Amino acid sequence: MKKVAIIMGSDSDLPIAQKAVEELKKLAIPYAVHVISAHRTPNAAASFAQNAANNGFGVIIAIAGMAAHLGGVLAAYTVLPVIGVPCKGGAADGLDALLATVQMPSGVPVATVALGGGANAAILAAQILAVENPALTAKLQAQKQQMADTIAQKDAALQGNI
Amino acid sequence: MKKVAIIMGSDSDLPIAQKAVEELKKLAIPYAVHVISAHRTPNAAASFAQNAANNGFGVIIAIAGMAAHLGGVLAAYTVLPVIGVPCKGGAADGLDALLATVQMPSGVPVATVALGGGANAAILAAQILAVENPALTAKLQAQKQQMADTIAQKDAALQGNI
Amino acid sequence: MKKVAIIMGSDSDLPIAQKAVEELKKLAIPYAVHVISAHRTPNAAASFAQNAANNGFGVIIAIAGMAAHLGGVLAAYTVLPVIGVPCKGGAADGLDALLATVQMPSGVPVATVALGGGANAAILAAQILAVENPALTAKLQAQKQQMADTIAQKDAALQGNI
Amino acid sequence: MKKVAIIMGSDSDLPIAQKAVEELKKLAIPYAVHVISAHRTPNAAASFAQNAANNGFGVIIAIAGMAAHLGGVLAAYTVLPVIGVPCKGGAADGLDALLATVQMPSGVPVATVALGGGANAAILAAQILAVENPALTAKLQAQKQQMADTIAQKDAALQGNI
Amino acid sequence: MKKVAIIMGSDSDLPIAQKAVEELKKLAIPYAVHVISAHRTPNAAASFAQNAANNGFGVIIAIAGMAAHLGGVLAAYTVLPVIGVPCKGGAADGLDALLATVQMPSGVPVATVALGGGANAAILAAQILAVENPALTAKLQAQKQQMADTIAQKDAALQGNI
Amino acid sequence: MKKVAIIMGSDSDLPIAQKAVEELKKLAIPYAVHVISAHRTPNAAASFAQNAANNGFGVIIAIAGMAAHLGGVLAAYTVLPVIGVPCKGGAADGLDALLATVQMPSGVPVATVALGGGANAAILAAQILAVENPALTAKLQAQKQQMADTIAQKDAALQGNI
Amino acid sequence: MKKVAIIMGSDSDLPIAQKAVEELKKLAIPYAVHVISAHRTPNAAASFAQNAANNGFGVIIAIAGMAAHLGGVLAAYTVLPVIGVPCKGGAADGLDALLATVQMPSGVPVATVALGGGANAAILAAQILAVENPALTAKLQAQKQQMADTIAQKDAALQGNI
Amino acid sequence: MKKVAIIMGSDSDLPIAQKAVEELKKLAIPYAVHVISAHRTPNAAASFAQNAANNGFGVIIAIAGMAAHLGGVLAAYTVLPVIGVPCKGGAADGLDALLATVQMPSGVPVATVALGGGANAAILAAQILAVENPALTAKLQAQKQQMADTIAQKDAALQGNI
Repeated sequence: MKKVAIIMGSDSDLPIAQKAVEELKKLAIPYAVHVISAHRTPNAAASFAQNAANNGFGVIIAIAGMAAHLGGVLAAYTVLPVIGVPCKGGAADGLDALLATVQMPSGVPVATVALGGGANAAILAAQILAVENPALTAKLQAQKQQMADTIAQKDAALQGNI
Repeated sequence: MKKVAIIMGSDSDLPIAQKAVEELKKLAIPYAVHVISAHRTPNAAASFAQNAANNGFGVIIAIAGMAAHLGGVLAAYTVLPVIGVPCKGGAADGLDALLATVQMPSGVPVATVALGGGANAAILAAQILAVENPALTAKLQAQKQQMADTIAQKDAALQGNI
Repeated sequence: MKKVAIIMGSDSDLPIAQKAVEELKKLAIPYAVHVISAHRTPNAAASFAQNAANNGFGVIIAIAGMAAHLGGVLAAYTVLPVIGVPCKGGAADGLDALLATVQMPSGVPVATVALGGGANAAILAAQILAVENPALTAKLQAQKQQMADTIAQKDAALQGNI
Repeated sequence: MKKVAIIMGSDSDLPIAQKAVEELKKLAIPYAVHVISAHRTPNAAASFAQNAANNGFGVIIAIAGMAAHLGGVLAAYTVLPVIGVPCKGGAADGLDALLATVQMPSGVPVATVALGGGANAAILAAQILAVENPALTAKLQAQKQQMADTIAQKDAALQGNI
Repeated sequence: MKKVAIIMGSDSDLPIAQKAVEELKKLAIPYAVHVISAHRTPNAAASFAQNAANNGFGVIIAIAGMAAHLGGVLAAYTVLPVIGVPCKGGAADGLDALLATVQMPSGVPVATVALGGGANAAILAAQILAVENPALTAKLQAQKQQMADTIAQKDAALQGNI
Repeated sequence: MKKVAIIMGSDSDLPIAQKAVEELKKLAIPYAVHVISAHRTPNAAASFAQNAANNGFGVIIAIAGMAAHLGGVLAAYTVLPVIGVPCKGGAADGLDALLATVQMPSGVPVATVALGGGANAAILAAQILAVENPALTAKLQAQKQQMADTIAQKDAALQGNI
Repeated sequence: MKKVAIIMGSDSDLPIAQKAVEELKKLAIPYAVHVISAHRTPNAAASFAQNAANNGFGVIIAIAGMAAHLGGVLAAYTVLPVIGVPCKGGAADGLDALLATVQMPSGVPVATVALGGGANAAILAAQILAVENPALTAKLQAQKQQMADTIAQKDAALQGNI
Repeated sequence: MKKVAIIMGSDSDLPIAQKAVEELKKLAIPYAVHVISAHRTPNAAASFAQNAANNGFGVIIAIAGMAAHLGGVLAAYTVLPVIGVPCKGGAADGLDALLATVQMPSGVPVATVALGGGANAAILAAQILAVENPALTAKLQAQKQQMADTIAQKDAALQGNI
């Protein structure tokens, strides 16, 4: 199976990257994690994105806050799907990072998920890899059912107690 | 190749759907277009999403404005990647639709693109289908190069005229 | 008297549901509380709303945050009045949930109250049930008077102390 | 059947009131329309709300923009359900009116609908009156089905044309 | 000298009222403080404003948060200058209260100061009373000079230490 | 009677100044109008504010958009009440000017009115001058009554026509 | 004198670039204008910025809208001062571009001016070049005086006409 | 070398000024730090800016929050480049200060950096002074390389640990 790249703009984004790692591990999807800054190590960003497909990656997850350019910079250098995870913390407490991630010009999309959405970025990456992979699709369907069962159990536990 | 579904919440979103159609046609990707409302035809939405994989779809694009629930409702019923295209027009002139599309709970991602980003939704869908399709990857790379060439020509044309 | 349904999108919304329960208890209005997620248990949401009227419910209260689709999803399946309670916590710290709850398309209203407004949702539900119930109207009027008296007492207590 | 009061803060809100009137007429619900300003005719506002129940009203719809106090002022004087319709036009182009309408203190709810949502305010009023009125419930269900049929027809008409 | 009325919408606004009291005491301006809610004690609000001029008040300060209607409700019943002090805490963390206070319709102004600006509301009230009161003007000028001197001293103290 | 100064930051603000002039003329309040820019003619701004009281002014109205500093700059140099009128047009379409006008530091208030609120600025100025002027108070009360009568007439005219 | 580079992310930004050109011409500052897209021609952006100092540029102006990454991308590759001009047009109508331009991480500043502020970007560039250039400083001072004179003339023309 | 002036609107902004000082010290750039308030000591602000060039300053950094007028007031009196550092804390938690700093009228730019961006303000000041100073340019380039090396080391350290 192709690998998922998880790129953080700063090592302070590690907790969000770890949520992505956790989901990928559950689904046994191979991955790599890197700290690459769009602004502090622009050459590394360009180089990583340009070589990602050849290096066996199928999807790139970019985690960044503030003027969150990382997803866009990576997407500029590759045609692999790039998933952007904006982070809280700027002038508009994350809304700035969300807009800087999602409002890409025509031709260079970044698939944006919720603020701090490391887990959903990984699940989206898995859904992308599952399009041509029935076994992975089955795993995702089982997870979805499990999630529904958990809610149903919580609902049942609530009855008679409120 | 798997098909791309383009679902509009309202037929007033047709111009945005057409931008997606145009991109898919350029890349010779099969597609279907539907008007299905999360709130006015919820059964149709549920049914479409539940059967999408079996009906040969690989990716779903959901186009909706205001309290833009369409992407989330479809994602609730499938593990196919769902791409959300928020539209302008609500209380916060699109920011509401953007947030209603992207801020999904853990486990049910919607890959969100820019406001009115029909073209980018189609390109993202193509990138997803291209992960295991080298021919489609090559087409996307050629498009990317063409886009760069166009900018370079515009830059050249500008010199000596300003 | 018809019952009030209180539906939470997540059990983390329990404190807000409890504020609603407390008000309904004061007014001796029957109720039921459930955890049903628009995105994680969409079939349960559809089923609950479709059968709510037959099951003796007169009003539904939907409590949800982030891309708060719950009120809209329930309203899609019933003509009972649906009251939406948006919660804090998303990219715009509740403004997103508020907009996702209130900006419904024509034909499918959600009666939205303030962020975290569990108590007001219950009082609004009571006001709705009181339209044809003079005894409940009298209770609501007495509460309103009591609320005014409390303010007047606080004002009196302040005099001479500031 | 009890009447629905439609109160505009300014006669410039008439187009929104007319959307409400149109829906009420379709459902044969009696109504009255008034221009009453929370700030320019506060006594009229207080008086109308205090006497609304005795005058045969079951629900009040308040339409107002900018620092949209009308819904709140009316709700302060009655325990009838008050539906607030915020309008576009202030500093935050409607978001201000929306927040000024919905963010009511505990004890005094205003059931808020979307910006300019005159039609939905009327439908919500009808849903409230329908709670104890099976004939009106049947009318609302028929309308809901019709709305779904319209979408389905639009979807059918689209096939083969895009 | 005419008195300044300080009206809080809720006794939770007392710390902001106290900042206003402190400034008025420094300037020996007479005042009264009340808890009056626009929504919970609307009759008291109307009555206070209608009689304020006759009761010796020259300026009214209204302190309120969320859908901050208090300033507007008081201004509806008097031609005395009404100063609005919006408070933090609603959906938009104060921006809602600010907009609900300031965006008044033509003919009914509310002189709005910064969020939580109890001190500035009192100073503005003093400036208003000082227009025809040279002694109070002199006090305000002295305070202004003192404020400048304090900054100058802080600047001097900083030199050589950074 | 003391005069009202109307200062525009730019002559493009003239329509808003004219709304203020119109109200002052109705009330026979003397006034002067000037174009003075906080950033382009800072010395003129300082000089005008420092001498305003001696030149017979009782209130200053400052009209400005974008990073609307004018009200604050004038207030820095005088203890006369300064009324700020923010204008639409910046990054946040007026919200920026509103915040730049109202969020003044403690000690230097600017009495802020609604966006483009030239008429209300003049009425507020009149209310301030009326505090010690019973004749002007009577005029303002008559205007207030007339405004209420106009609404009542509009309401009467509507009956039977909708 | 060193040159000023004016880089547009898209040729649709030409009107803003022309405002910059006009100011630079008035001051006889040499310049070059280019269309270079951070996302569509990332290699050109990197290359331009890396060589800008050696090619005789002293300041770079970057004009871009939406997820406005251009300023940041250029700043990543040079230590020349980079001035960012955000443009209107995205989800938050320019606020997104403003935040994406200004909220740069520590170590890589972008000197941001107002939305569409092409003229001010050029004047700021001139101020930067003037730090060690007394002749250019004198020109800027003369312009500043002229600007003040224009306002004073407008003020004089207004007197007696309003 | 010319000096950098660091002006705080309030001594509560000292931590942000210190971040600027720290960067200037690393680069051996001379500086002075002052507390000068645009609103409380307007004469000091005007005087400082008017004499800054003659007193050996080449760049001015202005640090201020809320209705952050300081940068604009200083820029009104000088043609030196003025760098504005908006601070968190107002109605819109910094967005207000950012807009009040950056949205300057044509002719009077303020080079705005991120909220609380004291370090970046100093680095931008250094970049400005480095335009005609190759030794300072070399220092800035070395710092930029060091910053990249630090990221690369963090990335290397991460491998094998996640």
